[in-house]
Amino acid sequence: MPKDTSMNNPERVYHVDLGDRSYDIHIEPGCLDGLGNAMRSLFPVAGRCLIVSNEVVAPLYLERVQQSLQASGWDTTTCILDDGERNKTIASWNGILDALMLAKLSRGEPVVALGGGVVGDMTGFAAASYRRGIPYVQVPTTLLAQVDSSVGGKTAINHPHGKNMIGAFYQPALVWIDPQVLSTLAPRELRAGIAELIKYGLIRDADFFTYLNQHMQSLLALEPDAVAKVIYTSCRHKAEVVMADETEQGVRALLNLGHTFGHAIESMTHYTQYLHGEAVALGTLMASRLSAQLGHMPANVEQRIRELYERCGLPVDIPVFSADAWLDAMGHDKKNVGRRIRFVLLKQIGEAFVAEDVDEQSVRELIASFS
Amino acid sequence: MPKDTSMNNPERVYHVDLGDRSYDIHIEPGCLDGLGNAMRSLFPVAGRCLIVSNEVVAPLYLERVQQSLQASGWDTTTCILDDGERNKTIASWNGILDALMLAKLSRGEPVVALGGGVVGDMTGFAAASYRRGIPYVQVPTTLLAQVDSSVGGKTAINHPHGKNMIGAFYQPALVWIDPQVLSTLAPRELRAGIAELIKYGLIRDADFFTYLNQHMQSLLALEPDAVAKVIYTSCRHKAEVVMADETEQGVRALLNLGHTFGHAIESMTHYTQYLHGEAVALGTLMASRLSAQLGHMPANVEQRIRELYERCGLPVDIPVFSADAWLDAMGHDKKNVGRRIRFVLLKQIGEAFVAEDVDEQSVRELIASFS
Repeated sequence: MPKDTSMNNPERVYHVDLGDRSYDIHIEPGCLDGLGNAMRSLFPVAGRCLIVSNEVVAPLYLERVQQSLQASGWDTTTCILDDGERNKTIASWNGILDALMLAKLSRGEPVVALGGGVVGDMTGFAAASYRRGIPYVQVPTTLLAQVDSSVGGKTAINHPHGKNMIGAFYQPALVWIDPQVLSTLAPRELRAGIAELIKYGLIRDADFFTYLNQHMQSLLALEPDAVAKVIYTSCRHKAEVVMADETEQGVRALLNLGHTFGHAIESMTHYTQYLHGEAVALGTLMASRLSAQLGHMPANVEQRIRELYERCGLPVDIPVFSADAWLDAMGHDKKNVGRRIRFVLLKQIGEAFVAEDVDEQSVRELIASFS
Repeated sequence: MPKDTSMNNPERVYHVDLGDRSYDIHIEPGCLDGLGNAMRSLFPVAGRCLIVSNEVVAPLYLERVQQSLQASGWDTTTCILDDGERNKTIASWNGILDALMLAKLSRGEPVVALGGGVVGDMTGFAAASYRRGIPYVQVPTTLLAQVDSSVGGKTAINHPHGKNMIGAFYQPALVWIDPQVLSTLAPRELRAGIAELIKYGLIRDADFFTYLNQHMQSLLALEPDAVAKVIYTSCRHKAEVVMADETEQGVRALLNLGHTFGHAIESMTHYTQYLHGEAVALGTLMASRLSAQLGHMPANVEQRIRELYERCGLPVDIPVFSADAWLDAMGHDKKNVGRRIRFVLLKQIGEAFVAEDVDEQSVRELIASFS
């Protein structure tokens, strides 16, 4: 893979090599209008295609995508979802399936996910399960989706008892990233995406953590070089991790840094109070303190991470719930006394590991330290 | 694989070799009580396990299965579904997911499907999608499930617009077949299972078709040698086909003989009038006549097939619906004039092929010939 030092060529393609499930991540400013052509060369015939988007993204970009597809011979229909993580439900997924049925898509015909992580996750799971699997194309429109959720084939919907509990590992046929669409992204959504960038720095790239520290203002101002740099770097990291461990048997689990606590926060607040990236930032602060508490990392590192989140404008105050509520939301089985809990922890900035054996008492102490 | 000539050894194991998705089909009279031990050797630890069954099968066999599992150290919970194809819905599937959540099964812990094809298909899809995939074990209790649906990883639920439209290719970890449980099977269910046996004869084994013709009375009387012979033969065929084409890109499609028409019959009668095997028998008669009508097979072969169905006690009268209703139920897009329909057709008994190019008019003529 190319090194991410030169910004001279604005187009970059990463190939995710997974045998017969391989695909490209194509990153290029303005590429939204080239989607139809790209899909025409990817599929044997330009037949029917369903575009799934949401009420926020559709007014901004649906027409451009439809025009690009139709100009390349695709017969498009659309399915527009409500916005927000609280709609990542079986009912919404079923709505996509209904649209696929009505559009009578056959097994080889693709569905396009135009939106953020929620649209991508739900559309991916609908593609995985409609007729036992049809192709899908990710066209991510949030920073979070561009740098993380659109790559790697983790599709899911939420269950009342837990986030992303229903889904499939099901790889897209193409990831098509136009950084220019971030210009319309709400600032809060931008910051939530930056939380996932910081995650790559924390788990495997200390230099990237330093870069983010130094260029946070450029990034928040969406300066093109900074935006390109962080998307390239993140997609390269994500592609490497997914190729090494597609179904999260090992190293891919490190990408879940902050997610065990983060998912619990989202679940306990019913997906209404925090964006996913915000919950991940809070969860990462908790994982950092737990790492220090268990003697894996110096205690002062938590403060460096907190300062970067603050510079970004991300929340840093952990919401207060009882320890029982936390443990329950993390799926911990309290009947099963000896059972240990699995967390991604840090040794230092740039190095994470999976701890399989954290005991309940340590988690209770951690939670008490934030009350 | 062994030849199926000797019935001296009542235990037989077929290995379905699919790389890291490989598994055994274990066939042995009375083996139900050995399930716990078998699963203990299959999984690293005997932890939690959910058993899914239905209101008909559970009173007969659930206790034996639970005792076997518990004696081997498994911590079991149960989920009992309503009986029948009309309950193969998103709602029932969601009920299994709820049970998995409540049982707090983790990623490596298995679910057992104890029942016929409906229980197996739904449990398989729940296993495929809970936490993006946990292992499942098929313990089929109908002839149809033992000889066809429990092997090969086709999992699904129905959608109001079509049968098996939502699902996954997701292989079981083990198929555990006890032919003795067929003693409690309703005669109508037994006959429906024989329809799938006849299918193997028609598509790839003319000798087996002859065997079924000669031994139909022994089979209907559940004589152990005949039962063992047909289960061995069918599982061998199914395993061979699945190994050659796991995700139905080619030869596996032949197993759908009679299913395009059959699924339409099930869907048009709202899954209340015909068992799946009955609908497949009717659909096979239609496919036979279509094969003759298009010049692929002598016209008199249809009568030989009909006579075998009659000898078995299967229905042979095609229900009457308008041609438009048939085409719609088969998912044919009438707006798309040139579009051809795909059918599995016969050249002779023992030889099937996929015809991609059947035109709408031929199908209308066929339907008229049954009115």
